[in-house]
Amino acid sequence: MQIAFLFYDGMTALDAIGPHEILCRLPGAKVQRVAKKPGAICTDSAGLELIADCALVDVSHADILVVPGAGNATTLRNHPEVLEWVRSIHAATKWTTSICTGSLILGAAGLLKGSKATTHWAVLDRLRFWGAEPVSERIVESGKIITAAGVSAGIDMALTLAAKLCGAQVAQTLQLGIEYDPEPPFDVGSPEKANPGIKNALLTRMEAYFERHEN
Amino acid sequence: MQIAFLFYDGMTALDAIGPHEILCRLPGAKVQRVAKKPGAICTDSAGLELIADCALVDVSHADILVVPGAGNATTLRNHPEVLEWVRSIHAATKWTTSICTGSLILGAAGLLKGSKATTHWAVLDRLRFWGAEPVSERIVESGKIITAAGVSAGIDMALTLAAKLCGAQVAQTLQLGIEYDPEPPFDVGSPEKANPGIKNALLTRMEAYFERHEN
Repeated sequence: MQIAFLFYDGMTALDAIGPHEILCRLPGAKVQRVAKKPGAICTDSAGLELIADCALVDVSHADILVVPGAGNATTLRNHPEVLEWVRSIHAATKWTTSICTGSLILGAAGLLKGSKATTHWAVLDRLRFWGAEPVSERIVESGKIITAAGVSAGIDMALTLAAKLCGAQVAQTLQLGIEYDPEPPFDVGSPEKANPGIKNALLTRMEAYFERHEN
Repeated sequence: MQIAFLFYDGMTALDAIGPHEILCRLPGAKVQRVAKKPGAICTDSAGLELIADCALVDVSHADILVVPGAGNATTLRNHPEVLEWVRSIHAATKWTTSICTGSLILGAAGLLKGSKATTHWAVLDRLRFWGAEPVSERIVESGKIITAAGVSAGIDMALTLAAKLCGAQVAQTLQLGIEYDPEPPFDVGSPEKANPGIKNALLTRMEAYFERHEN
C-alpha cells in the first residue's frame, strides 16, 4: 500500500506528522514524502525542517494521498505543477485526504466541486470559493475524499482511515500504541467551545496573516 | 525564552512534533533542535527525517528542555555525551520535560531518582531501574520535571506547560489554533480501556522489539 504525503515549504508540521505516525505503521505501508524536489522542506513551525525523499515527477501513483495544510492557508496557486500532481495522483487513489487547510489545496486542484468538506475552523468559508460545501465537523467523508479539521484533527482522521483500510483491530492497536487517550487541559478546542474573546483575537490575527501571505 | 528539543536517531517524530507545534508559538519562544551534530535525524517513523539545527556543544542553556522518546525505549546509554548534555542543561532549566520513553533518557541521566514519573504504558516499570516511582497518569509533575505518557500525551503536556509559562489565555489560544478538540474514533487509547487481546499483542511485540534494540 503506497502512501504519499505532499510536503511543501510553509506546511504545518503537525498536520503531516500526526497522520504520518499512524499511517506509516499500517501493515504493508510504503510511505513516500513527496515535494517539488527532494530535500529539506521548511515548515511554518519555527523553521523546523523535514526531509522530502521524492520529487513529484518520481511518484506517479499512490493508494493514499495525504495533503497537509499551512498556517498561511496556502492554495499553492503559484505552484501549478503541484496542483497538477495532486490531480493526477487523486485519479487513481483509494483515498485522498487532507488536514487543516490542505483541503484548500484539494479545492484549488479542482477536486472538491460539489463536495462536502472541512478545513481549519477559521477559514471554513473559503472552501466555497472552490465549489465545496463547508461542513463544521472534525472529519468529513465525501466519496473517496476525507477532509479533516484543523491541525490536530489529522490524528483522528488517520485512525479512522486506518480502520477503513485494515479493520478496527489494527486501528485500535495503533491508537493504543500512541497512547491516544487525550486529556486536553482546557475544553476550548473548537470555535463553539472557545471563549469569544480568544476566538476573535485568533481570527483577527489569522486573517491578517492570510492577507499578507495568501497566494 | 529558549526552548531546546533533543533530537536523536531513532526518536519518534510525533513525540517531538506535537509539543513543538505548541511551544514554538509561545510569545518570545526561541526554539533550537539539538543533536550530537546538526543535520538529518532519522526517526523511527518509516524513515522520516527531521533536521537538527544545533550541535550539543553549541547549546549550553535552555529555559525549557524537551526530550522525546523512541520506539526502542532508548536510554541513549551508549551516548554518554548526550546524557551529560541533558544533565548540564537540566541544571539551569525552568522546566525539564519528556514525552513517552524520553523519561527513560532523563532517568539514565540520573534526573529521576526518588521522583514520580511516567512514560509509555508498555514500559512503565522500567522507570524503577532509574530510581523513579512509576505513575500511570497522562502527565506527571515532580519539581521542575514534567513527564508525559506515550507519544500523543506530549500535546496535552505542552498545552499544560504553555499555561504555566504564559497563562491560560495563551494556552487556550494555542489549543484553539490547532483545533484540539479530539474525537478519537475508539475509546481504547490507554491500557485500562484497551481490549486485553490487543493490549497483550502490542506488549509482546514491543517487548520483542526492546529486546532486539535496547542499548
